[in-house]
Amino acid sequence: MKKKIVIIGGGFGGLNAAKELKGLDVEITLIDKTNHHLFQPLLYQVATAALSPGDIAFPIRAILKKQNNVKVILGEVTNIERESKKVFLQDDYYEYDYLIIAIGSRHSYFGNSEWEKNAPGLKTISDALRIRERILLSFEKAERYAERQSVDKYLTFVIVGGGPTGVELAGAIAEISKKTMLKNFRKIDPAKTRILLVEAADRILSTYDKDLSVKAKAHLEELGVSVLTNKMVKQINQESVLVDDDLIETSNIIWAAGNEVSKILKNLDTEFDKTGRVVVNKFCSLKEDDTIFVIGDAANYNYKNGSLPGIAPVALQQGKYVGKLIEQIIKGEKKLKPFNYFDKGSMATIGRAKAILQVGKFKLSGFLAWLAWSLVHIFFLITFRNKYKVMSEWIWYYISLRNGIRLITNRTKI
Amino acid sequence: MKKKIVIIGGGFGGLNAAKELKGLDVEITLIDKTNHHLFQPLLYQVATAALSPGDIAFPIRAILKKQNNVKVILGEVTNIERESKKVFLQDDYYEYDYLIIAIGSRHSYFGNSEWEKNAPGLKTISDALRIRERILLSFEKAERYAERQSVDKYLTFVIVGGGPTGVELAGAIAEISKKTMLKNFRKIDPAKTRILLVEAADRILSTYDKDLSVKAKAHLEELGVSVLTNKMVKQINQESVLVDDDLIETSNIIWAAGNEVSKILKNLDTEFDKTGRVVVNKFCSLKEDDTIFVIGDAANYNYKNGSLPGIAPVALQQGKYVGKLIEQIIKGEKKLKPFNYFDKGSMATIGRAKAILQVGKFKLSGFLAWLAWSLVHIFFLITFRNKYKVMSEWIWYYISLRNGIRLITNRTKI
Repeated sequence: MKKKIVIIGGGFGGLNAAKELKGLDVEITLIDKTNHHLFQPLLYQVATAALSPGDIAFPIRAILKKQNNVKVILGEVTNIERESKKVFLQDDYYEYDYLIIAIGSRHSYFGNSEWEKNAPGLKTISDALRIRERILLSFEKAERYAERQSVDKYLTFVIVGGGPTGVELAGAIAEISKKTMLKNFRKIDPAKTRILLVEAADRILSTYDKDLSVKAKAHLEELGVSVLTNKMVKQINQESVLVDDDLIETSNIIWAAGNEVSKILKNLDTEFDKTGRVVVNKFCSLKEDDTIFVIGDAANYNYKNGSLPGIAPVALQQGKYVGKLIEQIIKGEKKLKPFNYFDKGSMATIGRAKAILQVGKFKLSGFLAWLAWSLVHIFFLITFRNKYKVMSEWIWYYISLRNGIRLITNRTKI
Repeated sequence: MKKKIVIIGGGFGGLNAAKELKGLDVEITLIDKTNHHLFQPLLYQVATAALSPGDIAFPIRAILKKQNNVKVILGEVTNIERESKKVFLQDDYYEYDYLIIAIGSRHSYFGNSEWEKNAPGLKTISDALRIRERILLSFEKAERYAERQSVDKYLTFVIVGGGPTGVELAGAIAEISKKTMLKNFRKIDPAKTRILLVEAADRILSTYDKDLSVKAKAHLEELGVSVLTNKMVKQINQESVLVDDDLIETSNIIWAAGNEVSKILKNLDTEFDKTGRVVVNKFCSLKEDDTIFVIGDAANYNYKNGSLPGIAPVALQQGKYVGKLIEQIIKGEKKLKPFNYFDKGSMATIGRAKAILQVGKFKLSGFLAWLAWSLVHIFFLITFRNKYKVMSEWIWYYISLRNGIRLITNRTKI
């Protein structure tokens, strides 16, 4: 009997695990809630109307169409049973010999899940389109009502969380409001848009060295973003956010603080960290069950007195590693090597032409870092087609300073 | 006092009227339900996942940003009052000296409006995304359930209406199922997809000469589409359609038959035809009120013992004409010329590389017609940016036969 491998999630981890298993005589089932693999590092550009969903997402079954040992299933996993070795969907189940859990994470509201509807987070294409629509509609409302009432709340944006996503969103919103949309309105001046980035710690981008945080803050302030550090969000309502004791009126709050892992893992009966990640061993598997692997954002993998961060390269490397490992196990190899993370550095963009970059001790900021960031992101995009499209899109975007994807695609009541 | 001109609708008619009034010392308010101008002739390509929304739609306020006499408002008109010369939105109103109504049409279900939820029509980006999602989800469901039950209904597509939209949809669905998606699935064979085009009249594309209808039918049949003429749709349910006495099981019904105009025009107290279009005089205005113009799909303009068809060139030419006419009226010119339609011909594509084309007596079909169709559509796209994008997209699409935009962007339960 062929061994059955089930992979949950078609992100960087799951997809690379599947690809690594190419050519092996096994039955792989890859299950995802969406039909596409998403290049998540560029998702903020969809949210801020610089790229279309089709530029950064690609149907999983198209990517894997030549790999005949994989079947792709669109569906949502509801439960995992370790005893019977089954993965349950709403109305069917799949048996596994080896299970790879690569489900990523959702944003965490730290117990205030009711904040989500007024402060959406950014993890999926659907999230990005929702945020895009809110941003664009807000300017439309301001223009429409400017003659009759104060429209400051429509022209105030609050981004909660000063990690890479928050920083990139704040920079991109500053660019579109203060540059791209100039002259588009008659009654309001989009350049007067207030953009606040709120961070609970004492500096933004705290995973980078301190001098890069300082530079990133300066770059953001040049773009007109107010960076508030050591500030806690206490309450979120439809038209305001309470930051420490200041009530800020705004109809645009975006959540970019904190992650948590889906509760479907709870039944695994193993060790979790406080954000719900599974604490895995050095082979990326459960301590109690070496047929179940957890990789990417859903895993807590011990690294340098802490754990590996939830970024694409970690998921990608773990995916490849686990794919290889399963192949070795099936072939009966005895000497299995633990996972070894190769740190290629990390980077974040600030607006249209600046970035920060850190690889070990090496640091860079400003335009050169942005250039490096652009090249890396363009060339890492999974398929040639997307590379070609994103590149032509970006070249045009950079030349023209226009933002062509500013579409509100739902028929929205205003 | 400056004259106030209100334009309802930012399609081909409204947008071109606004542009024609450029430089005139008037106050123009352009109101649209969406924030974008849509290149509707290519909408079926968004519905069938060949193009992204951003390729064929562009924010109205970006198009008009340099024309300072226009204010763009996102909002839905609820009523028009001729006596007080006011256009009402949900919670405000705009006064006009001249009113241009360019609201287009919606699809008509001939009194069976309950059919809409199971047989959506195609007029807006939102419609197109809904149809795209239904098509893609249907293949996903077929793949997921193929081992347990018959999935024929998921692999049967019924398009109602053999006009250009129906023909183009049928051809495009045939292309993606029988060519683009080959090898994407393990349990189903997308090449076995059944595609039925149902037309009540005795031939499809009845506005073209008969020999072109015959050729179009042959092209469709080559692609694997069954063309059913002289057939009436009697009933539509969630999983079936009754065509004459045949019950066809399908979860994919698309409506491309018939148009009707919004009921907000009812209060105009003038003459309507049976599809709700306003019967206008030779200056495109109401017979009873020469300050109100109705153009494009919402108007019935007498032409060759019938009326002008609801196609983009008519709306575009009427928009320009009315813009010019209002300028002449304001400047006090006495000799006003009636509208004169210049027939540039019409064309429709069938699949990826065939089309039919008719300009007066001149007729063409097959690949050369398709080439002509492609060039015309690419070069008529409103902005250079879109031209550039659609062209690069199409070149790639044509070379690769891939369909890259096959995204289901909502988190959909399956």
